[in-house]
This record gives sequence, structure tokens and C-alpha cells, in this order.
Amino acid sequence: MAQLTSTEWALAQRPVGLPQLSDFQKKTTDVPEPGDGEIQVKNEWMSVDPYMRGRMYDRESYVPPFQIGETMQGGAIGRVTASNHPGYGAGDLVSSMAGWRTAWTAKPEAVMAMKLPETGLPESAFLGVAGMPGLTAYAGILRIAELKEGDTVFVSGAAGAVGSTVVQIAKIKNCTVIGSAGGPEKCATVMALGADHVIDYKQARGFDGLVAALRAAAPKGIDVYFDNVGGDHLTAAIEVARPMARFAECGMIAQYNETGTPVGPHNIIQVVGKQLKIQGFIVSTHIDMQPAFLADMAKWIGSGQMQFNETVMEGIDKAPDAFLGLFSGANTGKMLVKLG
Amino acid sequence: MAQLTSTEWALAQRPVGLPQLSDFQKKTTDVPEPGDGEIQVKNEWMSVDPYMRGRMYDRESYVPPFQIGETMQGGAIGRVTASNHPGYGAGDLVSSMAGWRTAWTAKPEAVMAMKLPETGLPESAFLGVAGMPGLTAYAGILRIAELKEGDTVFVSGAAGAVGSTVVQIAKIKNCTVIGSAGGPEKCATVMALGADHVIDYKQARGFDGLVAALRAAAPKGIDVYFDNVGGDHLTAAIEVARPMARFAECGMIAQYNETGTPVGPHNIIQVVGKQLKIQGFIVSTHIDMQPAFLADMAKWIGSGQMQFNETVMEGIDKAPDAFLGLFSGANTGKMLVKLG
Repeated sequence: MAQLTSTEWALAQRPVGLPQLSDFQKKTTDVPEPGDGEIQVKNEWMSVDPYMRGRMYDRESYVPPFQIGETMQGGAIGRVTASNHPGYGAGDLVSSMAGWRTAWTAKPEAVMAMKLPETGLPESAFLGVAGMPGLTAYAGILRIAELKEGDTVFVSGAAGAVGSTVVQIAKIKNCTVIGSAGGPEKCATVMALGADHVIDYKQARGFDGLVAALRAAAPKGIDVYFDNVGGDHLTAAIEVARPMARFAECGMIAQYNETGTPVGPHNIIQVVGKQLKIQGFIVSTHIDMQPAFLADMAKWIGSGQMQFNETVMEGIDKAPDAFLGLFSGANTGKMLVKLG
Repeated sequence: MAQLTSTEWALAQRPVGLPQLSDFQKKTTDVPEPGDGEIQVKNEWMSVDPYMRGRMYDRESYVPPFQIGETMQGGAIGRVTASNHPGYGAGDLVSSMAGWRTAWTAKPEAVMAMKLPETGLPESAFLGVAGMPGLTAYAGILRIAELKEGDTVFVSGAAGAVGSTVVQIAKIKNCTVIGSAGGPEKCATVMALGADHVIDYKQARGFDGLVAALRAAAPKGIDVYFDNVGGDHLTAAIEVARPMARFAECGMIAQYNETGTPVGPHNIIQVVGKQLKIQGFIVSTHIDMQPAFLADMAKWIGSGQMQFNETVMEGIDKAPDAFLGLFSGANTGKMLVKLG
């Protein structure tokens, strides 16, 4: 049997500001036969996500930083090619954090691998609507933002993997939904997901424009803000928040590549008088919601209430391009790299 | 019987920035005999509080703005001099929102008047530790900040009416407490309340100094921040917050007299990665905690676990000075005006 090799991506150097292709370095590694308790897997899909930018900084955070010269990590879906583990057999579908590579051999627990159930869903859904971004949306809007029927909900990054799921959950819960996205094409996608209003932030241009657009869409203000963007979006949401509004702080992509000192929300004092709750969260803290999430998601996808969009790039060579595309807004829905 | 008159303070004009004595206007009014359902009260104490600055702006807020030329309002304690209401008799002790005046006649419900129980406490305590500032501290630290035994707690404005109560509740709950206050005298007061560490913010001078002082006092970071100050204090607290820390946003006195655009916390992105909860609150929302609050407070004062400091100015003429003193830090503990 020929030696299996893996094409992989490592960090060549830590990006300053917006990452560049030259920050990545391709390499080839041999993938051994599985030892005791190990499985060998060929990846079919890998995920690129905004949070990975944070792991490129050398700093303490909730996930350890990527190391220079070492293969990066991230969500991946693959099939077992050989197993020396009693729980896995050849052909099993597996999700793991062993992304940014085409194949690997490891103990499942070392890469957070998990055997996936055979559902009617396409495999790639487990990296999106039925995977980490979907659970992020579900935990954030239901638990952190404490969504109630009839709320007016503002979702930034509403055409993205997380945001588009939030829009649809809020509509399923009979809320009024305002999404923001960049450009006419994505705005059309957000409306097609069922949003009541959409704001093209490239047209709105900054705090004043966003506030004007939000006031037009929600004259009485917003009850919930699901934040994927930060910056002017967050400041505008504070400005139009109703008393007792809840903010789920999922991400601040507007700031991930910031090199200077970012500008904080100048109107933070409104948190007091309006009794706002601004709460950050990380999906792994809410893993206890996984069973309810999967049950709801299966039901919603089955009934046609939950759509999902994907932007797919082909081949491991395109992985850095796919990642960089997250920051230029190249994706509608989940950004994926097809490997298999 | 001679006509009772009241000396009162009205807003002469809306302050720009720091209020001035010339923003206030003294007047004298006749106080009529009580009509049907009314009581006549001579105030013995009145309260000045930082939140009143907000009512001097002409803007929508959680309490309506003061009107130019009309007597201002605020907490007061007085005794009934005549009653035409079945629930009140002459000599009864009454708390109300009919402050900034020496006497008044009104229906109790029109001025949120309430008969006070005869306790062992001095009357003025009902404007401080056993009144609105005390309940603010109690609701904020226990419900909003979700205080747990062993937490490391940072309290700004720790020598003030609310802050000094927060310090002591946190010590009663076996927490490590860091207070901040301005100047050596107030810092000594904070330590005398039982705080483990005190930061003189006039020495610390801004964000970097506050962060350094906080890191020295709490090398592992803080679990709770009770914010009375905002500005650099809030930004520094975000910087040293541990994962899952909770912020009770009670007030931002550093910004109340701001005329330019305030500077927001530049490190707001840490809310996501550290999963912080930053939540504003207003005491009236938590009035359901009043019975538990009064029971606990009576117990703590009785056992000597809860001290309270007052800064008293004498006579209605001094009311504007007392209010202005809040912004120069003239008070240790509750700032009061003695009228009776």
C-alpha cells in the first residue's frame, strides 16, 4: 500500500493587520498507519472561520495561538481510511479539528474527533448550519440574547454562516428581523432568508448612516443585537437599543485585523440608563445545548424553515484564499474548502 | 396658624458641562393645608445624588428631565405636620421624592411618599445605606453582578454612598475587594470599611496606571466590577477581567458633565473572548428585592458588619453646594443636606 501523504498549511509568519498569502506556508507530510487507539482519516471538507484570525496572534486567549511552521487547526469533515480504534471503522464519517490538511492519523480525542450520524444532510452541513457556526447562532440568540417572541432583532454579518442562521431562528420565533450585510447581492440573500429589513453597510457608511438606517427599519428601537461585526455596528446598536435590550457578542470582525488602537463605543454610558446587557460568549461554553440544537435543526431543515448557503473553494491549495475571503466579504453563508 | 412656607431650589438654566451655582434658582412657596387625601410634611433631610445630573439634560431618559423654573425633585425624609389621609398622622416619618424643598403638601402617591417604620436607625439612613443607594448596591452586586463567595471584586467610587455599601456586602460574602477612590483620606475610609486593597485613582492617573494598580492588587484578575465611574475605570476593568467576569454598570460619573464626544473602551473586543457580561441597571427595576434588602441590612447594621458614613451640609441654602460637591469628590459616604 502506497504511503499516504497530506498537503497542509502552516503559518509562515504572524500577520500584521490584514493577513496576506505570504503569511502561509504549504508543506507535505507523511501520514502513518494508525497505531494503537488511532484512526487514519482523509478529509473531504475543511472550514475557514473568522475566529482563526485570533489564533494567529501570539497572545493568551481562549484557544492557544497557532505556532509558526506548524500546521494550523480548524473544523474538518472526513472519512476513516484505516482504524486501530474499537469505536471507528473504515468509511465512518468524522468531524474533527484537524483541518488545514488533507489527511491525518491521530487518536480521536487528540483532535476532538467525533463520529457523525448518517442523516439526510450533506456532509458539509456539519461544518455550518448543523455544526459549530449553527450552534454558535443557536446558543447566542436563545441563551445569551434571551430571545422572546415579538422582539425586534438586529443581526450584523447577516449573510454569513452564523448570522444567516440567527436571522432564520429569529424568524421561526416570530420576531422582526433587521440584517446587515455588504453589497446588493448579500442583501438579497438576507431578504431571501426571511429578514424583514436589510441594511447595506457599504451604503450606510459608518455610525450616523447605520443609526439612520436602523431608525428607519425599527422606529421603536431594537430589543436584541446579535453582533458579528463590532465597531460602528455595535455603537449604532447601542444608540437605537430599547430599554432592557440584550446584546449577544459573538464576534467583532471589523476589528480582527486592527493594528492601531480601536475606537470604543462612545455611547457606552447608555448601558446604564437603558439597562442594557452586553454579553460575550464562545460556543464551547454552551456545548450542553448540542442535543437540543441538533433536534431543532433537523426539524427546521426538514420543514424547509432553515435554509443554508455555502461558498465553496476547491482544493487544499485554495485554503488561504478562502480564509482571506472572509475579511473581504467573499462568502455568502458558510465559507468552505472542498478537499475530497 | 401661620402660613407654612417652603424654601425650594429650581433649575435656573440647563448646565453645560460641570454645573455651576448660577444654574440654580432659590424660591419661596406657600405650603397649603392638606386637601382630601393629602398630607403636609416638613422635610428634615434631603438627598443629593449623581443621577440628578442626568435629569438636568433635556432628553428622554428613564426619569423625566427637570423643567426650568420648577422645583427639582429627589429623595427626602420628613415628618407629617398635618394629614387629611387615613394612612398618615401628624408626627409620622415619611420618605418621599419631594426633596430640594423644606416643606410640601401633596397626595403621598404623587411624590412616591412612604411611611417609614420606627427602627433603631437614624432617620438619615433611609436616604443612604437603608434607602435608595443601599438598595442600588444590594441589587447591583447580588443580582446583576451575580456575586459568588470567593470572587475578586473591583468597586469604583468605593468611598461613595453606593460604593461603600458594595465593598461591605462583598466582604460579608467572603470576597476579596479592591476599591478605588480619590485621595488619601477617602482611601483610608475604604480600607476602614474592610477592603483588601485600595487604589487612589488620582495617583494612578488614567488607564495604564489603573491597569498596573489592578494587576498588583489582583494578579489573577477580577471576577466582578461594580462601576460607578465609567471612563478609564471601565476600560481598565475590562483589561484585567477574568473569563466570565460580570460588570454591574451602576453609573459613570466621570462622563456626566462631558461636553465633547466621550471616549469608549478601546478594548471592548475582550467582551467576546473573555465572555464578559456588562449589564446596566436602575434601582427601581429591582424594587422587588426591597424586603430581603431591609431584612439583611437591619441584620448587618445590628451586628456591626455594615458601617455607613455621611457627609452633611446644613440648611436648604447649601443644597446646590452639596450637589456640586459630588463631582469634586467632597463627600465620603452619603452626601446629605440637613433641613430640620
